Amino acid sequence: MPDQRATLSEIAAAAGVSVPTVSKVLNGRPDVAPTTRQKVQDLLDRRGYTARRATSSGGAGLIDLVFRDLGSPWAMQILDGVEELAYRAGMGVVVSAVHGRHRTRPDRRWIEQLSARRCDGVLLVLSDLSPSQQSQLDELGIPVVIIDPAGQPGAGIPSVGATNWAGGVAATEHLLGLGHDRIAVIGGQPTVPCSRARVDGYRAAMNAAGRKIPAGYVRHGDFNAPSGYREMNALLDLSRPPTAVFACADQMALGAYEALYERGARVPDDVSIVGFDDLDAARWSAPPLTTVRQPLTEMAGMATRMLLALIAGEELDSHRIELATPLIVRQSTRRPA
Amino acid sequence: MPDQRATLSEIAAAAGVSVPTVSKVLNGRPDVAPTTRQKVQDLLDRRGYTARRATSSGGAGLIDLVFRDLGSPWAMQILDGVEELAYRAGMGVVVSAVHGRHRTRPDRRWIEQLSARRCDGVLLVLSDLSPSQQSQLDELGIPVVIIDPAGQPGAGIPSVGATNWAGGVAATEHLLGLGHDRIAVIGGQPTVPCSRARVDGYRAAMNAAGRKIPAGYVRHGDFNAPSGYREMNALLDLSRPPTAVFACADQMALGAYEALYERGARVPDDVSIVGFDDLDAARWSAPPLTTVRQPLTEMAGMATRMLLALIAGEELDSHRIELATPLIVRQSTRRPA
Repeated sequence: MPDQRATLSEIAAAAGVSVPTVSKVLNGRPDVAPTTRQKVQDLLDRRGYTARRATSSGGAGLIDLVFRDLGSPWAMQILDGVEELAYRAGMGVVVSAVHGRHRTRPDRRWIEQLSARRCDGVLLVLSDLSPSQQSQLDELGIPVVIIDPAGQPGAGIPSVGATNWAGGVAATEHLLGLGHDRIAVIGGQPTVPCSRARVDGYRAAMNAAGRKIPAGYVRHGDFNAPSGYREMNALLDLSRPPTAVFACADQMALGAYEALYERGARVPDDVSIVGFDDLDAARWSAPPLTTVRQPLTEMAGMATRMLLALIAGEELDSHRIELATPLIVRQSTRRPA
Repeated sequence: MPDQRATLSEIAAAAGVSVPTVSKVLNGRPDVAPTTRQKVQDLLDRRGYTARRATSSGGAGLIDLVFRDLGSPWAMQILDGVEELAYRAGMGVVVSAVHGRHRTRPDRRWIEQLSARRCDGVLLVLSDLSPSQQSQLDELGIPVVIIDPAGQPGAGIPSVGATNWAGGVAATEHLLGLGHDRIAVIGGQPTVPCSRARVDGYRAAMNAAGRKIPAGYVRHGDFNAPSGYREMNALLDLSRPPTAVFACADQMALGAYEALYERGARVPDDVSIVGFDDLDAARWSAPPLTTVRQPLTEMAGMATRMLLALIAGEELDSHRIELATPLIVRQSTRRPA
């Protein structure tokens, strides 16, 4: 590590920039002016820095994968995608969850441990880093990529997400195409970007079809089953309840199933339901759930590929990649009775 | 490591045993005769070996957690339990899946990587090790504990499991108590010990209640939903189908739900269903599934505690621990119509 620091300082001096800026170029971070990037990259290339780093980084062959919450039903599909690619590259995957009261970003000890175990790169799932953590990682020369099922691109950090808006459009168009007029939506928290995008997709499809959205038809849960249960009950209590509901998460859709079941209503005979995610549970619910597939394993694989490229000192083609979200039609949707 | 090898050789010579035997004692493996264990332990204690190892093992603060299959719905709950305990102990968790065609045990490269990254201990989930892998780990001084949701205790390796037989008894007694006579069981593969134990629990409860098991009422799937779907259909095709079914895995229970749904039968009005595992999906199925809870997170936590003790050079109280499997009564069971 002292060797690397020395080289970075020399290059920074020669380019007339700070060491963190050199690190940013080295780690493929986009927040560097193109001319600066070119100058630093030329100096790095001239000293053969990239090649040296890729072949003898001194790393332990480890990628850190950090989840905000290991309890999320997404977590396993993501881990599966990361582990497969890392295995092929001969890398181990260290998995950790964000601990502590706030639980939105890793704690202080985390960076010390990353450094102590000579970690080569970091994948973050739905966590963010403080500016000081970002610059510490930059200085350690540890690249970061975000896997982003919630659509919250981190400031200047390469990330992989899904086409949430297009998924919301596809779900709603499917229900419109079946002949439904009274279509409601259950989003996640209105502050979460992926939820906003999915609900906006719903609105866009309704508008494009010339449909008015009745009062009370746009609900908000928190992506978990109990909130889908609660909001479905609220929809059923309306004077004109919907005949179809787009739930912006499979777990909320399954919560909605339970509310309907309790009232003796049947899916899809009485109410059609579309989910979002395509968790295993969607395939094996009764009836199997029509849903928008979020390709989590592929997203994780793509993010791992990007991280391995950064570890090898390569440039990224793009700093933000969104994978498509196809509609999977199963048996929870049909024409209105 | 050379230092450690030298000490182990001296102790082996002094005790008149092999180096692997000394390693076994050091790593808490049960397959050593009590008198030999005592002699070796005395020599280890006299040289202060335990203390030295615990304080300066040279490990990188990493536990390896190896799954046979990351796609298993168990995997996340187990990872959650391991990560929490490891975090508190300041250890990182490296997660890997078994790759390759056979997919029952880690490949050759794995031991090299463990050694290269100076791993402190290994948790195996449903994987087994070859005798040569076991002895390599012994010689490296890397302890192993098995987390064992399938009830396949590895030869001589400390392990944590669940009370599968008692769970099968409890599920069946619940259905008998509701007044069911025609109770069928869908087990996993008959060769898997946990399935045998659960099905035997079913038989024991039926026998104790003086009930005969009708022909065709003991079925076997593979723990996954499609096999539950298939076997439920087979049960419904019998001339006298059951009024209640104990499915030895929640996923098979959800497959059974789907078969019933397709035929227009209702749970629990037409058929009562009990599962096993208590996955998240059990809580959010419609109707919520009555099931036997396998405490995976607690099992994983217990195994991690055992591994941390072995890493610290402590003795284990017991080499096999089974945690209780309480019945969780929800809405998929009721009195026969």
